[in-house]
Amino acid sequence: MEGHLVDGVVEVGPNGRERYYDSRGYGRPRGAGVELAPVEAAHLLYRGDLGSVDGRGFRAFLGDNPDIVGRFLVYKDLRDRGFYLSPVRDGRVDDLEPDRGDVDLVVHPRGDGPWDGTVEHRIRVVGERATVPMASLGDVVLAIVDEESEITYLETAEPDVSGSSPAVVEELGVARATEGAGSAPTPTPATILDDRVICWEPPADLYERGFYGQRLDRDGDALGLSLLEAAHLVDRGVLEIDGGVAAVREHGRAVEGDRFDRRLAVYRDLRRRGVVPKTGFKFGADFRTYEAVEHVDELGHSELLVRVLPADAALSPRDLSLDVRLAHGVRKRMVFALVGDGDADGGDDITWRSVSRLTP
Amino acid sequence: MEGHLVDGVVEVGPNGRERYYDSRGYGRPRGAGVELAPVEAAHLLYRGDLGSVDGRGFRAFLGDNPDIVGRFLVYKDLRDRGFYLSPVRDGRVDDLEPDRGDVDLVVHPRGDGPWDGTVEHRIRVVGERATVPMASLGDVVLAIVDEESEITYLETAEPDVSGSSPAVVEELGVARATEGAGSAPTPTPATILDDRVICWEPPADLYERGFYGQRLDRDGDALGLSLLEAAHLVDRGVLEIDGGVAAVREHGRAVEGDRFDRRLAVYRDLRRRGVVPKTGFKFGADFRTYEAVEHVDELGHSELLVRVLPADAALSPRDLSLDVRLAHGVRKRMVFALVGDGDADGGDDITWRSVSRLTP
Repeated sequence: MEGHLVDGVVEVGPNGRERYYDSRGYGRPRGAGVELAPVEAAHLLYRGDLGSVDGRGFRAFLGDNPDIVGRFLVYKDLRDRGFYLSPVRDGRVDDLEPDRGDVDLVVHPRGDGPWDGTVEHRIRVVGERATVPMASLGDVVLAIVDEESEITYLETAEPDVSGSSPAVVEELGVARATEGAGSAPTPTPATILDDRVICWEPPADLYERGFYGQRLDRDGDALGLSLLEAAHLVDRGVLEIDGGVAAVREHGRAVEGDRFDRRLAVYRDLRRRGVVPKTGFKFGADFRTYEAVEHVDELGHSELLVRVLPADAALSPRDLSLDVRLAHGVRKRMVFALVGDGDADGGDDITWRSVSRLTP
Repeated sequence: MEGHLVDGVVEVGPNGRERYYDSRGYGRPRGAGVELAPVEAAHLLYRGDLGSVDGRGFRAFLGDNPDIVGRFLVYKDLRDRGFYLSPVRDGRVDDLEPDRGDVDLVVHPRGDGPWDGTVEHRIRVVGERATVPMASLGDVVLAIVDEESEITYLETAEPDVSGSSPAVVEELGVARATEGAGSAPTPTPATILDDRVICWEPPADLYERGFYGQRLDRDGDALGLSLLEAAHLVDRGVLEIDGGVAAVREHGRAVEGDRFDRRLAVYRDLRRRGVVPKTGFKFGADFRTYEAVEHVDELGHSELLVRVLPADAALSPRDLSLDVRLAHGVRKRMVFALVGDGDADGGDDITWRSVSRLTP
């Protein structure tokens, strides 16, 4: 059979419908004929199941349409894995997926075809050199075609981050522990030293049940706290530092700029959600988190790695790949906290995205 | 005993030498007394082995000298691990380490002291928020103090990158394979498609013995090549592409800018060294490399992950930590190729650095 490219679709008729759509899930029926997306036509040409498009064979057709190469490779890979796919055109797949201009291909569940109206994955095809706006993720699978034409699939979602760790400092009873009868709680003094805070004589629960700070010595009580932990604790009236929260923030901004405010917003949000954030430095992340801390002596595996980014951040696929691969290797979930401008002063403008490897 | 801070050192005398230097490796002898670096004095104060410095105890002394906190934590950690250390002052440790202004502490081999004149590690202490000029690495251990005062040690070196894979295309006999008697070699045609190159009918050795490209299909011969591979092969007269190397480079620069030239310089250098570079995308790196490719069917484990950077690049300790952790997890060595300006046109201005985890 021969096809003709008309207005961006390849028309095959008059009797292509049965051969291509009904029996093998290519294209969109149009009477007894069928309209193929260019990527579908390329695949049929490649397999030798379509003779030509306007007299052009596979190589020439691809050469005329270099912008479909990435999508062709992904379409082919998923077909090879046994899936039927529907390319999205004009933002929709028939009536199935309206308003998904950010999606290139819909993958139907194994065994289903385009006539079933079911969706297994929504695929966005990106080249290795693209940048990926992080806020655009969630309910989409990135199919990243690298420079050697290998494909990496990354599943993205909007995770529900929550846990059962003591949500607020008050639940630890720390402030109350130092409270005289009838008087206000007495915060524990602490000192800023360079870009960290030392608390020489902390209440034991602060570390043991709240998992705040790290002991400077196995035998001693003194705690080294990060500036984030200290800012949070001063804010909750548990620690007292010369100059108050303002002094801690000033130190934080001096060493990290705006990033400090974003990280503090996320730190607070995680604590509020019952999740304990500790430094993710050894994993190259902002935080690793524990969702169920009862006592530091019975600490489980940390579940998430969290990277804090501005809300409008865009990452390269290579950086995404690095984060996801590392998280996978240490059996953690990679999560991104996107912080909007509203958050600079403790508002609540944080959106969450997770990214993980997918083998379709 | 009591010490006095004079010109940046803490003098303890008249008889501190025996107590601090001879028996426990602190300080530098000065007659019957001893001169302590502030970090040594802090450690002695911390342990209660020195009464005070100018009437100040440990907490007050540290508060007066916040810039030594990071070094104090590292000094303490390595002492706790059973090492003697000598702080570097004025760029030297006695006569042992002249001209090492980039080193903060010298660690003596276990069992040795400062009087032995031996060196196990040269330590540079950096905070998590510092940036690390990559060219400054090699023969130094980074002790990175993170925001929660935990320490990560990274060993750096100047690696010898080399292998036994076919060093130049000619060794594969690919060009000669198409050479008619008495005529010049006939390169194989290939086509640029978007940001990759396709070679429809390549000589089999190109992939099988040279490990160039990836087969588009398990059953077919057609190869997808990266722009880097294609530029190299066109340059060696093996491939023929409309517009020659210039066209490939133009495409590469259009999608990657200067980075393409740096990566091409490193790609060529690796091939020259007998090492086969393939994309490191899945590991978030520029390349993974194979040092002994004989046939793709008997491919071993890839040994290195290579990140390509400009010669003056400085990384954050967090990014370094991420790279090293990932490489460790997949049992590869993390290597950085620093490309100087001289290399934009195929010169040879590449320096190599490796970074790996160290447990002292």
